[in-house]
Amino acid sequence: MTENHYSIDGDKLREECGVFGLIAGPDSHREPAFDTYNALYALQHRGQDSCGIAVAQRGQLRVHKGKGLVPDVFTMQDLEAFRGANVAIGHVRHATNAASVNPANIQPLLVRHASGSMALCYNGTLANGRSLRAESENRGGIFQGTNDAEVIAYLIVREHLRTHTLEDAVINAMEYMIGAYSMVLLQSDKLIAARDPNGFRPLCIGRIGDAYIFASESCAIEALGGVFLRDVEPGEVVVAQDGELKSFHCRIRAARRSLCLFELIYFARQDSVIDGCAVGAVREAAGRELARQNTVQGDLVIGVPDSGIAAAMGFASESGIPYDIGLMKNRYIARTFIQSQKWEQEKSLRIKLNAVSATVRGKRVILVDDSIIRGRTCARIVKLLRDAGAREVHMRVSSPPFRYQCHFGTVTPPAEDMVASGRTPEEVCRIIGADSLQYLSLESLKRLAGVEGLGFCDACFTGDYVLPVREADPRQLSIFPTLE
Amino acid sequence: MTENHYSIDGDKLREECGVFGLIAGPDSHREPAFDTYNALYALQHRGQDSCGIAVAQRGQLRVHKGKGLVPDVFTMQDLEAFRGANVAIGHVRHATNAASVNPANIQPLLVRHASGSMALCYNGTLANGRSLRAESENRGGIFQGTNDAEVIAYLIVREHLRTHTLEDAVINAMEYMIGAYSMVLLQSDKLIAARDPNGFRPLCIGRIGDAYIFASESCAIEALGGVFLRDVEPGEVVVAQDGELKSFHCRIRAARRSLCLFELIYFARQDSVIDGCAVGAVREAAGRELARQNTVQGDLVIGVPDSGIAAAMGFASESGIPYDIGLMKNRYIARTFIQSQKWEQEKSLRIKLNAVSATVRGKRVILVDDSIIRGRTCARIVKLLRDAGAREVHMRVSSPPFRYQCHFGTVTPPAEDMVASGRTPEEVCRIIGADSLQYLSLESLKRLAGVEGLGFCDACFTGDYVLPVREADPRQLSIFPTLE
Amino acid sequence: MTENHYSIDGDKLREECGVFGLIAGPDSHREPAFDTYNALYALQHRGQDSCGIAVAQRGQLRVHKGKGLVPDVFTMQDLEAFRGANVAIGHVRHATNAASVNPANIQPLLVRHASGSMALCYNGTLANGRSLRAESENRGGIFQGTNDAEVIAYLIVREHLRTHTLEDAVINAMEYMIGAYSMVLLQSDKLIAARDPNGFRPLCIGRIGDAYIFASESCAIEALGGVFLRDVEPGEVVVAQDGELKSFHCRIRAARRSLCLFELIYFARQDSVIDGCAVGAVREAAGRELARQNTVQGDLVIGVPDSGIAAAMGFASESGIPYDIGLMKNRYIARTFIQSQKWEQEKSLRIKLNAVSATVRGKRVILVDDSIIRGRTCARIVKLLRDAGAREVHMRVSSPPFRYQCHFGTVTPPAEDMVASGRTPEEVCRIIGADSLQYLSLESLKRLAGVEGLGFCDACFTGDYVLPVREADPRQLSIFPTLE
Amino acid sequence: MTENHYSIDGDKLREECGVFGLIAGPDSHREPAFDTYNALYALQHRGQDSCGIAVAQRGQLRVHKGKGLVPDVFTMQDLEAFRGANVAIGHVRHATNAASVNPANIQPLLVRHASGSMALCYNGTLANGRSLRAESENRGGIFQGTNDAEVIAYLIVREHLRTHTLEDAVINAMEYMIGAYSMVLLQSDKLIAARDPNGFRPLCIGRIGDAYIFASESCAIEALGGVFLRDVEPGEVVVAQDGELKSFHCRIRAARRSLCLFELIYFARQDSVIDGCAVGAVREAAGRELARQNTVQGDLVIGVPDSGIAAAMGFASESGIPYDIGLMKNRYIARTFIQSQKWEQEKSLRIKLNAVSATVRGKRVILVDDSIIRGRTCARIVKLLRDAGAREVHMRVSSPPFRYQCHFGTVTPPAEDMVASGRTPEEVCRIIGADSLQYLSLESLKRLAGVEGLGFCDACFTGDYVLPVREADPRQLSIFPTLE
Repeated sequence: MTENHYSIDGDKLREECGVFGLIAGPDSHREPAFDTYNALYALQHRGQDSCGIAVAQRGQLRVHKGKGLVPDVFTMQDLEAFRGANVAIGHVRHATNAASVNPANIQPLLVRHASGSMALCYNGTLANGRSLRAESENRGGIFQGTNDAEVIAYLIVREHLRTHTLEDAVINAMEYMIGAYSMVLLQSDKLIAARDPNGFRPLCIGRIGDAYIFASESCAIEALGGVFLRDVEPGEVVVAQDGELKSFHCRIRAARRSLCLFELIYFARQDSVIDGCAVGAVREAAGRELARQNTVQGDLVIGVPDSGIAAAMGFASESGIPYDIGLMKNRYIARTFIQSQKWEQEKSLRIKLNAVSATVRGKRVILVDDSIIRGRTCARIVKLLRDAGAREVHMRVSSPPFRYQCHFGTVTPPAEDMVASGRTPEEVCRIIGADSLQYLSLESLKRLAGVEGLGFCDACFTGDYVLPVREADPRQLSIFPTLE
Repeated sequence: MTENHYSIDGDKLREECGVFGLIAGPDSHREPAFDTYNALYALQHRGQDSCGIAVAQRGQLRVHKGKGLVPDVFTMQDLEAFRGANVAIGHVRHATNAASVNPANIQPLLVRHASGSMALCYNGTLANGRSLRAESENRGGIFQGTNDAEVIAYLIVREHLRTHTLEDAVINAMEYMIGAYSMVLLQSDKLIAARDPNGFRPLCIGRIGDAYIFASESCAIEALGGVFLRDVEPGEVVVAQDGELKSFHCRIRAARRSLCLFELIYFARQDSVIDGCAVGAVREAAGRELARQNTVQGDLVIGVPDSGIAAAMGFASESGIPYDIGLMKNRYIARTFIQSQKWEQEKSLRIKLNAVSATVRGKRVILVDDSIIRGRTCARIVKLLRDAGAREVHMRVSSPPFRYQCHFGTVTPPAEDMVASGRTPEEVCRIIGADSLQYLSLESLKRLAGVEGLGFCDACFTGDYVLPVREADPRQLSIFPTLE
Repeated sequence: MTENHYSIDGDKLREECGVFGLIAGPDSHREPAFDTYNALYALQHRGQDSCGIAVAQRGQLRVHKGKGLVPDVFTMQDLEAFRGANVAIGHVRHATNAASVNPANIQPLLVRHASGSMALCYNGTLANGRSLRAESENRGGIFQGTNDAEVIAYLIVREHLRTHTLEDAVINAMEYMIGAYSMVLLQSDKLIAARDPNGFRPLCIGRIGDAYIFASESCAIEALGGVFLRDVEPGEVVVAQDGELKSFHCRIRAARRSLCLFELIYFARQDSVIDGCAVGAVREAAGRELARQNTVQGDLVIGVPDSGIAAAMGFASESGIPYDIGLMKNRYIARTFIQSQKWEQEKSLRIKLNAVSATVRGKRVILVDDSIIRGRTCARIVKLLRDAGAREVHMRVSSPPFRYQCHFGTVTPPAEDMVASGRTPEEVCRIIGADSLQYLSLESLKRLAGVEGLGFCDACFTGDYVLPVREADPRQLSIFPTLE
Repeated sequence: MTENHYSIDGDKLREECGVFGLIAGPDSHREPAFDTYNALYALQHRGQDSCGIAVAQRGQLRVHKGKGLVPDVFTMQDLEAFRGANVAIGHVRHATNAASVNPANIQPLLVRHASGSMALCYNGTLANGRSLRAESENRGGIFQGTNDAEVIAYLIVREHLRTHTLEDAVINAMEYMIGAYSMVLLQSDKLIAARDPNGFRPLCIGRIGDAYIFASESCAIEALGGVFLRDVEPGEVVVAQDGELKSFHCRIRAARRSLCLFELIYFARQDSVIDGCAVGAVREAAGRELARQNTVQGDLVIGVPDSGIAAAMGFASESGIPYDIGLMKNRYIARTFIQSQKWEQEKSLRIKLNAVSATVRGKRVILVDDSIIRGRTCARIVKLLRDAGAREVHMRVSSPPFRYQCHFGTVTPPAEDMVASGRTPEEVCRIIGADSLQYLSLESLKRLAGVEGLGFCDACFTGDYVLPVREADPRQLSIFPTLE
């Protein structure tokens, strides 16, 4: 079991990445590298294993990246070296296995090329990444890392050899890319954002003074004091240059929009607004809906910090059952503590989380969280509450049962490790040791998140994948999608 | 202005220290150093500038200490070197000026002496520390640091030259110590706790298996899975040895108990119980009381994270005005970020805290925090909410106006930096830019915290110091207190 | 002026790299990564800016590399992670500008490819590197770094797509590579060494038990306790696999062998034997020859530590003038000291080097060094000796005047910074402030180093480059060499 | 066996400390902290385990110290914080067990006291340290560390309570101190040097501009570009203040001067002059004397780097047998390498030292070193030479057999670990595996080092201790020396 490294949210999915880019305007004295550094803090929840910033500075491209959190990787000296840059992009990333982050996979990727050097980073997963890699290799391409960044770079460079602009190359390359990707690229005088035709991962546009911003989430724009303009549309390529924005569209049209539902449930920061959905409001509404469907009596509503707090408050508000802080999280738990593998899981949880006896003793507790993946942390929290004197513990989950692996940008455990996979809610309830368990239905969730024209990817609940996810033998050439 | 280094709570008082001690029982296989390490995590909120652990290991005393948070100072290797210890004490500490932590002041202090070596650490301030130091120097004592640890050590050692046991030496020494102190000491086979006769600072007793625990707060006992037994009484000296507890009392009797009110308002962790007060419950009740006294209409109650959350929830619950998460705290802000002094205060706050526009826009916001000291952070938060669209911002504070310096264990700014010092609430309201401001009255606060027989120190609100705080010229000998 | 970072040899050329590889034999229990680590210590003089080790471990290729000296880059944990590898290669490297080592240039380079992954590292410079890079880019290749490692990797991979074995691919690729290169490559079960047809840079073969070794210098083989077998021949490709060595030859024949003379004069470690030349013996003989040509009276011979010691001893022995330690080097000067750019050059030199007054006062000193490049350090040493009381200082240099840039694997200053460039020895003598100056003639040097059939590259003294060093416009395709 | 940590000189005694102090003159703009930093580099050979600098800066005393070499402990930032100091002292130290350096023992010791704060550091050992410590403890003194620094501080402070000046306190304190000590102290406007009445350890005075310097060795003065004035006399106390030097003498007169002979043989840097002896000249003369006493034929003289080089050159010069570099030392061996305890001793030596086969093969080698303590490293070097083909190896040692522990400032192994203890030279010769072994006689050594009036401590060779070294029971009061 891979526990979450920096929070008690041990049983959570992991977003793979956050991206950011900023280009200074013609008259502006902003420092894009410093802004990017600050913005990466606001996106840190999207990836804690590595990060990096690439800049164009007096026509030269440079990159600094490494393992760890933003302040671990960047010293003030590192940032100072990027002073005077006119455009910057940044990336935070989660690796499947944090202990063995492959340095060659850390983004942004800086590509030196006669057609014009560039740097790129992305959030997502290419469904046909292995095929595209095999094809590149067959043409003589070499790879240092194992993720899709080099794959995308080869595609774009190949196209750029016959296009005039980088944006045309990106648009061409997108015809070959199947999957989820929200990416930003820079050249010496240009910043480009591109979002896959399905719009799996968020990507939005902001402005601060005469500088333009692209970011995975609106909270990064607000962290700088900038204003949110709009989302990048699925399939859109946006170019910021010379103080202007230009919009293009790739030649692929997806059958439907497919925003990842888990962005709303758990990944995105509560204060972000994604494709028109206010994330915090969706979470609270999910709690309200759970309350409306609730069938048991309770004395107290408790949220699992921090992921279940919003839904728990919605539940309390709708049900009239009082909300209280029954689980106290230690906010000084640092990575060193967790990385040492000396501590048994249960002792470890107790140090991270304390059930407040004075609050829960003798009470019928409604415990709310946003999701249950493997179920082990959930079971330990239920036990913690019982040990602290709770009379009953009723689990309420503000999403449907999680049963299928994600292939579009999220790190999920194998299906056999998911507690709801092949089990009824009653069986799950027994495993986590709760007195009752209710999930939010998929229909309810979609209705709550409903924005005109917005479709979702719900494959992790239903197994219905929007795009084909099985690749042909990677040593074969990929079969390219037919263009419209 | 010295901003709080690791949280958004920039305008907060700083507790000076947390102490902990554990002695293994005769049959136990516990590792006191490892337990102490874990417990210091639970006490980290009481001091983030330095920490240390001292142990007795096969009759030898050893100490490891340094600047920084618990995981910064201790590697697994450092802990492993303490394996096999039978007794350990630990300390976390806040320094007035974090940048220049004087290594000679880091605790525990290990004292080698023919009468039996010992290690000690304490939380508090001696009102007559300078006089005692001067007296020691006049007798030929030398000092490496500037705090009271060496002063106390000289007193105890001097007494120990004519007493049989360390506890007797401590009891004698306490006759000369005027002020606030909760301390733990160890010898090779013994653990001692002592609390000043007024009981300014908390100190409690716990048990896990056949091991005994002394800790500043009960949450540290619970973090280990131990059980809380009782508080150390004011003036009490408790000895844990050979699996037994013995209680003594010093020969000084205080006129009244004087628990620091700010422990309940802000310092202590919400899940701790101090001298019979459940901290979280007091905070929520303070919010309820504020609601009962409230005179304005509001659409929304918001707490300043994390210090104002409990009171805000109490306010919302009592008033019926809905609580919502209108301020979003970035939980990845690390020390490196803040320590770099490159960022202007306002930009810095924005990265730490984001006002959720979707929640506050157009609303009349009731903003709750536990205290206002200097008022600058508060003013910036009010502005943040207005920038995010709040129509009105009404500030409610769950403690009385803070106007006087603390001399009993807390780091406070000079009175002239306290916004309420010499100003009416209306003037403070104008300075922080709120539409209205209400404080909780001292009477209300004391009533809420009221436990049979429990008195409080309220000097920071009233200027009524329980003990004399002006010392004679430190080059003179101290005038020793008359004994009862 | 870029001063040498870790020694007093501030006015020295910088070798660019050292390479090493070891493959365990079928029955051996060696740990190739640990051996490589130890061997890199012995090659550390060939590059101090970055280093790395790549291994094949249970069929998987892995690499660990970073900035700094061998012990800075590798922890024991890093090495332990490579336990069980069957083959390893390692590299030490000097960067032109140490402060800004580009991480993408650190070797070994690990290349993932369908044709079989590999890792490679090299010592040298391709004269046609820019053309080859441009050609690769025109075919869609992307580059992350700026040195020739990726260029060579593309060539080899391109060839490997149509050859069965990696060695055949290397042999084919060598037809396109013009310049100086000694390289080692590994695959999961194979170790390959290749040396350019001119043999500019050293590369030799050793054995320890049933393991085979390739190394830049024989001292690395001896550091492990292994035995030197022979040098890799110019143009030779040697494959070690399954406990056997196989030798191949590339299809290019060079007009003549061209071992770099500076390897013998300065770069190589004194205890190495290169292409049959015992390095220490050559240096001592050079000192003897200088003595035979000497025209002045002296009381004392002094060598500049460490580079001039061997020649100074030869001079003393031949001339009968006593050798003494008149310059004392501080052996605790560490990188931190030098990297701080706070110290003026002269103060800095004084801390690194002290002229022993007791030894030199009133004496006519013969000062011997191996070379003068810029002349500034030399001038400061002459002044140091005069300040310490030396009556006369006669400079003797065991190589000819250095006047031309190297294009075959060495970092040299621009010609205008070389003190001998465009100046007579008399002018140089005046600049360095010596009483007289004599260089060793090129003819003498070649005669001393003379081994049957061994030719040298002497371009830095003569400007006669063995290979063309001006490239066509890099955006053009390279003109490939005609094959034999 | 505790191997030397940073050099191949594994079988060497360890000096315990080096001291330094500098006070700026009235008109000078020197930075004493920066000068001290540079000077500590020049004294680093006297201690590599910890170091520190204390300064007086605008009337305040401050100290920075830690484990490791000078550049490990001090960043530029640390030094910058000391800018503007008017006086500084510094210390380098060797600990008995480097792995467990007790931080409380690291010097300088900063003592805060009403009589005037001071900082002190010393080189040496008090023979009556334990008695003095016990006496202090009986008077109520507390100790944090285990060495004599606090003992000396208590003595001085006790005296200072009844003297007007610090120098008077030092002079008084010296009446109670029996043993070896060379110390420097600072107050806010004053720098003091004091040397024990026997003059065991060196201490000298220098000047640079109008600043005065005290240093363990003259090489530290020269490293700054200063001029050596004279040695501090045994029993002398020198005060530098207001641009003037004042000399005092303590009231104890020693029977005779007793400079440690090992300072000349091994400890001091070769370019230092101590009490009139030029260290390098003594070492070379010792080699010459060995040559005169030599009884065997040899083809080659080799010195063990770095300790045996000077004597080997003297031997070669006197005997006419050629000197050559037959042992090559790796100058990149860093602490990390050695501290890892994974390497067997023999493999470890091979990486540090290589026997040059080309030089020694078939030769009768005269191997010269300055001393043999345990004999194991010596045995390994003899084997290394034989493995490299040496026909005979004749060991010559430029000091007498080392047989007794030092009690005056040196870390020596227990007598039973000294190879010459209780053994004849013939037996030692067999153990180290040499063909013959000759030591320098004590008479010869003293004669060579002979300076008018200079006496030596030769206890390590003879067991004749100049002062009583057995203390009474430390719990008893010390019996104070009778004053003259």
